[in-house]
Amino acid sequence: MSMNSFGHLFRVTTWGESHGPALGATVDGCPPGVPVTPEMIQHWLDKRKPGQNKYTTQRREADEVKILSGVFEGVTTGTPIQLMIENTDQRSKDYGDIKDKFRPGHADITYFQKYGIRDYRGGGRSSARETASRVAAGGLAREAMKAMAPGVQITGYMVQMGPHQIDRTAFDWDQIEQNPFWVPDAQAASDWATYLDGLRKSGSSVGAIIEVVARGVPAGIGAPVYGKLDTDLSAAMMSINAVKGVEIGEGMSAAMLTGEANADEIYMGNDGQPRYSSNHAGGILGGISTGQDIVVRFAVKPTSSILTTRKTITKNGEETEIITKGRHDPCVGIRAVPVGEAMMACVILDHLLLHRGQVGENRGIIG
Amino acid sequence: MSMNSFGHLFRVTTWGESHGPALGATVDGCPPGVPVTPEMIQHWLDKRKPGQNKYTTQRREADEVKILSGVFEGVTTGTPIQLMIENTDQRSKDYGDIKDKFRPGHADITYFQKYGIRDYRGGGRSSARETASRVAAGGLAREAMKAMAPGVQITGYMVQMGPHQIDRTAFDWDQIEQNPFWVPDAQAASDWATYLDGLRKSGSSVGAIIEVVARGVPAGIGAPVYGKLDTDLSAAMMSINAVKGVEIGEGMSAAMLTGEANADEIYMGNDGQPRYSSNHAGGILGGISTGQDIVVRFAVKPTSSILTTRKTITKNGEETEIITKGRHDPCVGIRAVPVGEAMMACVILDHLLLHRGQVGENRGIIG
Amino acid sequence: MSMNSFGHLFRVTTWGESHGPALGATVDGCPPGVPVTPEMIQHWLDKRKPGQNKYTTQRREADEVKILSGVFEGVTTGTPIQLMIENTDQRSKDYGDIKDKFRPGHADITYFQKYGIRDYRGGGRSSARETASRVAAGGLAREAMKAMAPGVQITGYMVQMGPHQIDRTAFDWDQIEQNPFWVPDAQAASDWATYLDGLRKSGSSVGAIIEVVARGVPAGIGAPVYGKLDTDLSAAMMSINAVKGVEIGEGMSAAMLTGEANADEIYMGNDGQPRYSSNHAGGILGGISTGQDIVVRFAVKPTSSILTTRKTITKNGEETEIITKGRHDPCVGIRAVPVGEAMMACVILDHLLLHRGQVGENRGIIG
Amino acid sequence: MSMNSFGHLFRVTTWGESHGPALGATVDGCPPGVPVTPEMIQHWLDKRKPGQNKYTTQRREADEVKILSGVFEGVTTGTPIQLMIENTDQRSKDYGDIKDKFRPGHADITYFQKYGIRDYRGGGRSSARETASRVAAGGLAREAMKAMAPGVQITGYMVQMGPHQIDRTAFDWDQIEQNPFWVPDAQAASDWATYLDGLRKSGSSVGAIIEVVARGVPAGIGAPVYGKLDTDLSAAMMSINAVKGVEIGEGMSAAMLTGEANADEIYMGNDGQPRYSSNHAGGILGGISTGQDIVVRFAVKPTSSILTTRKTITKNGEETEIITKGRHDPCVGIRAVPVGEAMMACVILDHLLLHRGQVGENRGIIG
Repeated sequence: MSMNSFGHLFRVTTWGESHGPALGATVDGCPPGVPVTPEMIQHWLDKRKPGQNKYTTQRREADEVKILSGVFEGVTTGTPIQLMIENTDQRSKDYGDIKDKFRPGHADITYFQKYGIRDYRGGGRSSARETASRVAAGGLAREAMKAMAPGVQITGYMVQMGPHQIDRTAFDWDQIEQNPFWVPDAQAASDWATYLDGLRKSGSSVGAIIEVVARGVPAGIGAPVYGKLDTDLSAAMMSINAVKGVEIGEGMSAAMLTGEANADEIYMGNDGQPRYSSNHAGGILGGISTGQDIVVRFAVKPTSSILTTRKTITKNGEETEIITKGRHDPCVGIRAVPVGEAMMACVILDHLLLHRGQVGENRGIIG
Repeated sequence: MSMNSFGHLFRVTTWGESHGPALGATVDGCPPGVPVTPEMIQHWLDKRKPGQNKYTTQRREADEVKILSGVFEGVTTGTPIQLMIENTDQRSKDYGDIKDKFRPGHADITYFQKYGIRDYRGGGRSSARETASRVAAGGLAREAMKAMAPGVQITGYMVQMGPHQIDRTAFDWDQIEQNPFWVPDAQAASDWATYLDGLRKSGSSVGAIIEVVARGVPAGIGAPVYGKLDTDLSAAMMSINAVKGVEIGEGMSAAMLTGEANADEIYMGNDGQPRYSSNHAGGILGGISTGQDIVVRFAVKPTSSILTTRKTITKNGEETEIITKGRHDPCVGIRAVPVGEAMMACVILDHLLLHRGQVGENRGIIG
Repeated sequence: MSMNSFGHLFRVTTWGESHGPALGATVDGCPPGVPVTPEMIQHWLDKRKPGQNKYTTQRREADEVKILSGVFEGVTTGTPIQLMIENTDQRSKDYGDIKDKFRPGHADITYFQKYGIRDYRGGGRSSARETASRVAAGGLAREAMKAMAPGVQITGYMVQMGPHQIDRTAFDWDQIEQNPFWVPDAQAASDWATYLDGLRKSGSSVGAIIEVVARGVPAGIGAPVYGKLDTDLSAAMMSINAVKGVEIGEGMSAAMLTGEANADEIYMGNDGQPRYSSNHAGGILGGISTGQDIVVRFAVKPTSSILTTRKTITKNGEETEIITKGRHDPCVGIRAVPVGEAMMACVILDHLLLHRGQVGENRGIIG
Repeated sequence: MSMNSFGHLFRVTTWGESHGPALGATVDGCPPGVPVTPEMIQHWLDKRKPGQNKYTTQRREADEVKILSGVFEGVTTGTPIQLMIENTDQRSKDYGDIKDKFRPGHADITYFQKYGIRDYRGGGRSSARETASRVAAGGLAREAMKAMAPGVQITGYMVQMGPHQIDRTAFDWDQIEQNPFWVPDAQAASDWATYLDGLRKSGSSVGAIIEVVARGVPAGIGAPVYGKLDTDLSAAMMSINAVKGVEIGEGMSAAMLTGEANADEIYMGNDGQPRYSSNHAGGILGGISTGQDIVVRFAVKPTSSILTTRKTITKNGEETEIITKGRHDPCVGIRAVPVGEAMMACVILDHLLLHRGQVGENRGIIG
């Protein structure tokens, strides 16, 4: 019942703060015999790492992962895997002048009210730095999934930054890795660069929408009615810092559809498996995967650390103003892409294990 | 780790199918000493009950709740409370002709693939009938909350049906109970009636967006980072049948805001508590309540049971067509309103208990 | 995190009181496709049923189980199974005279102190009647196990009643069902009958030790280090009313052994599986099954309801005396035998599912 | 549902192996505002540390704890606390010659069968070294308890080593810290030294019984019926390496008592609280604390690492013999004393938090 854990059988507990000595993920329930090296995990951490271009925070963290337990002679043992990342560039002096002021739109006021603690060093536990632990755990989940469901491919990308949406007709998977925004649309990548550069220089920030797709997930994973695949995905994404909305398939727009428009018609594919005329469902019906692409979107609010003066109060209850200097992301949504992928990987692996546990393998074969 | 349970300390497990002998909620962890009668629970079930007007399914269920345990001499004992609702109007013959065909957009295909079971009687466990159990549990949660946080008020209402949105400038709390749509806008109520009547007659269906607001929730409930209040609310709402998207506060639109626009500025209120210039956050920062209104929205897709012919397949893998006769809701979102309220009540009570358990009471007093 | 639940994947939540309208078990996570009828469950309830002979309480309960959900057309659907037993012979008037007095050795004082509730009707939730729900769940677990591990056989029996132990050299499996004490020793059965008859007539009661053996459990189930098979068995048995001690294999006597005496030497069997010279381990090493018999013992204290006057106090804090009339068991340990079996069945099924979930099947083959 | 976690609200997940780079405990749910320094934790680790006298393994570990998260400016923040202990004296070469042989009575065979992994380096995850993490978590629990229930005192001691029991009439609390066996009986300490010295020199080992007492625990903690205080204590103790039996109060001997002998009679104390004539119950009735001393005992089997030749098999299925050289404990029970204390501390704190969460404070006042 830990509040800092997620997952049922593949269970991840993250720990650590922005400016403490280290942070990490304690991962329990990983299948044994999975080949894992630090490099495999590092690959994903490097995607998320700050300071890689001018659009993300200039904090420089090596984000080097150490595997402290649960892996022996290069394979997982089935026991808890401790993934630790040491903090190296804390520079907590940057935060000195906001020590007693709360940032509007930031969790420091609610943490203080609840716990009576004001960890002014970069947000403490509420910092987006916590997401490095998720990415490490997600890297592990991907390796474990290779043995269980080798066809699964998980890809995240941005579909909106501020008012700018991608052009779905120009969607190109190959573009995603070609630009700093993980955006599947070359024109958008170029336009957004200009837009974000202006925003960055003005000391402002903006929100974004990320879409994560899992292809190749077998039908039948997920479970009624509070352990639904979409329930767990929704919780996983909403738990990421700054996320304010989550959508599966058609998402909020499902409200506008009629039953006729929404129903994905069913045919038989040449492979003897059901195929569908469309995917309004986002690959999930009744909380259980259909075999279609799992499609999840989430919205990330703009970071609250901006250079414009805002009204706020101090710990002592005095009204004042605040400007947040420091090294921040003009669009924190960019770095949320690998985080969303990691959460998707963890949730899908967890449900693969749960399904194997309760059911073994699918019991209903069509045809 | 039950897949049919939610909540941490106030833990609800629902059971039962659409056409079995009964369904219900097993509620564990309710505080002792809470005055509860069946009538208090029944009040909320009656709100959700089908067949109350022409806009909801004509299935007639008494939906009478029985308290089988955990209440003695009119108060809760602190032990599990079994809330049972017997099914009285199953009429499973209505479903006979779709026994072997899967409904596009419905969970019967995924349930079959996973479990090998085809409970054709009204969707079995995937039926929206399951939500009666949630409403019963929510009614109990409301009673328990009265002692712990008497100021909390939870209200749900529709804000969109198909393409039609409410006029926020005409928002009127008093309208909500005055129309069959729980809509806080008299004009919308009238317009929607005409719209839905046409839809119903044509045998079609449509989606909707429901908003649930909790007023009077104290600051400080919720917990980092996977037990966040918004994480749990998101999971709670997404677990409701047919929900495809969940938003907190600004929701998906947060993507379009700049940091300046999004930040709710902070002042000191006359009561010595922080107050905010706006509520883009939806009452939650870093997963912890701010003391502002908690605002959650969710989108419900249109029911898949429609009178228009759709392409589908049979259990045997033959392509065919389907029309779903029977007694269905043209806008299942209407009856989702009390369900969303119930989930909000359960989640907030649970977090009040969790907060009391770990922290006792808020440790950081501002001013 | 429910306090009234046990199990990880096969998760049982019991509810109900001694003298409420009904009690039962909500079982989640049962594999789908298991053939189950009420009669299969009833078989085990009948073993535990009170009033079958003069050595158990004369309360007459039909203990008829109803399956309210989760079974369709005779097989489990994979969704929650509600097993309900209605109380028919409550006779709460028997308890009237002890309404305000606490029974020494009984939970009514601690329940009152904690919850402020005095459910004087037969102990309420603390009554041994709750164990009927466990037996029902255990019956279900046995059926589910038949498909997963058909060789498993679970048998409980008494090995001690008061000062009288069985003669291990006379151990006879066939005797167990031949006498009212489930004792595998014909001479003991006869001696104990005389002993207990005397005790019953004098209005006294006595404790007992029950041993439960699971034969045919495959090697490899259980998991380090807090989900060990013996950890879960220990919790399962200790949770039974009146249990004060639990032993695995050698149990408390392991303290007296040297390393040489304790080590079960290992050989290769003709079937290519390891075999052991002895079973001091009780079939579990490091929390994981060895393939040998799983052997668990637990001690049940004497019931606190006796006809001898004892000193006690009232709710008002007045010192007084108490005699507990009513219909009680002179040796409540007798009826604990099927309860212990049921708990063993649930725990083993749960760990079979967990093992399948995390590992699939054993990865280390010897030889 | 992690298999390497225990506790409900105060939740401890341990990780790490005997010979990996480090091991530790991830502790979630600790109340905020608890003053904690590494020294406070170190105090308890030093009690358990190996190599302190000739009766424990000569492995030399500094067992220095580092607090990597969850403590800021000397107090707990309410977020996860990572307690890490680096391994410094692994000397895995000692284990080289048993690389492919299974030790009779040791978990290496079952780990191998289950996971297909043979971590020959000192038992890997099944090593008693894991208990250092528990002791660290227990130290933290003790600090947190000071604020919630300042009167609680937890003390463990040995009551039996091999065939030698303490003389209860000579029980002296002050002796416990005066000898290497934590034995409350000066004569026993002297006798056992001679006995164990002989055993050590012969390369043998022996079992032991440890008793842990918690004094000053308020009435009312614990919960029916699977979250009982004794259920959780039983699981906590049984999860310790080499434990084969657990007793509460009278324990297995409860079987021999009559109802008259077992019932602890109740009086009113001068302080207006109930007092009892005796404590057969071990401070727990119906799973809830009575306010008397909580008394738990557990038996530890002799370590399987002995210098006498035993029959065993290899990974390849060949029959062979084994002698376990290396640095082992002749009576591993000695070092189990602080481990048992730590588990008691964690369980009691957890139940104090749970009680506060669900009930607030005791609702039933006697008198």
